Amino acid sequence: MEITHIEHLGIAVKSIEEALPYYEQVLGLKCYNIEEVADQKVKTAFFMVGQTKIELLEPTSEESAVAKFIEKKGEGIHHIAFAVPSVAEALAEVEAKGVKLIDKAPRGGAEGLNIAFLHPKSTCSVLTELCEHPEK
Amino acid sequence: MEITHIEHLGIAVKSIEEALPYYEQVLGLKCYNIEEVADQKVKTAFFMVGQTKIELLEPTSEESAVAKFIEKKGEGIHHIAFAVPSVAEALAEVEAKGVKLIDKAPRGGAEGLNIAFLHPKSTCSVLTELCEHPEK
Repeated sequence: MEITHIEHLGIAVKSIEEALPYYEQVLGLKCYNIEEVADQKVKTAFFMVGQTKIELLEPTSEESAVAKFIEKKGEGIHHIAFAVPSVAEALAEVEAKGVKLIDKAPRGGAEGLNIAFLHPKSTCSVLTELCEHPEK
Repeated sequence: MEITHIEHLGIAVKSIEEALPYYEQVLGLKCYNIEEVADQKVKTAFFMVGQTKIELLEPTSEESAVAKFIEKKGEGIHHIAFAVPSVAEALAEVEAKGVKLIDKAPRGGAEGLNIAFLHPKSTCSVLTELCEHPEK
């Protein structure tokens, strides 16, 4: 697989409003976008750090996978997202190598990216997302 | 604080040897360094992804903080490390803002960096490291 960089890190928080002062006033990062991703039942807040985004994830429903993550493991880093030139090609490649997929095909994610998740059972327990900028 | 980029992500694994095939053959990353950090009781393996390193952390003792992390939360992303121009200045700045520190002063970390950890109680539950390249 050709990974160009870490596109973003997803961090699970109970409340974006309560987390913002740490990210903005302590770390000195700037939140440039807050967006709700309805089908993942989360509200997201984005910060740019070098070439990588930090994406805070606040569950908007108890049914959200992020709510279940917080319940089981507490707040913290939830997933890593790698930028690849083609999510479809990368999925085909890793599936052929025996990796279990959560998404069999790319779907729309936050910020207009095409994304797909690999299953943590196949990724040394790190929930892993592949991302592609559709315009590239 | 002035953060230039994410210097590395620490990922806790039970065995670097068992994790390597995923990182090298599935993700296509190249391990360029394996190093033991005696005072943290871990063996580390490094991969470059864009401007950020992935640092696999394998405990070399049951007393290692990484061993305790794996016991409590399972394998997975353990910490995030931000690159800053001066760890000492950044520590002084965040301590003045009320952040609890694990390391009151910079100390030596893997790959010859000067590092210090902030306490997750003050960082929205994300174990956070600050790093400075001593030659820069």
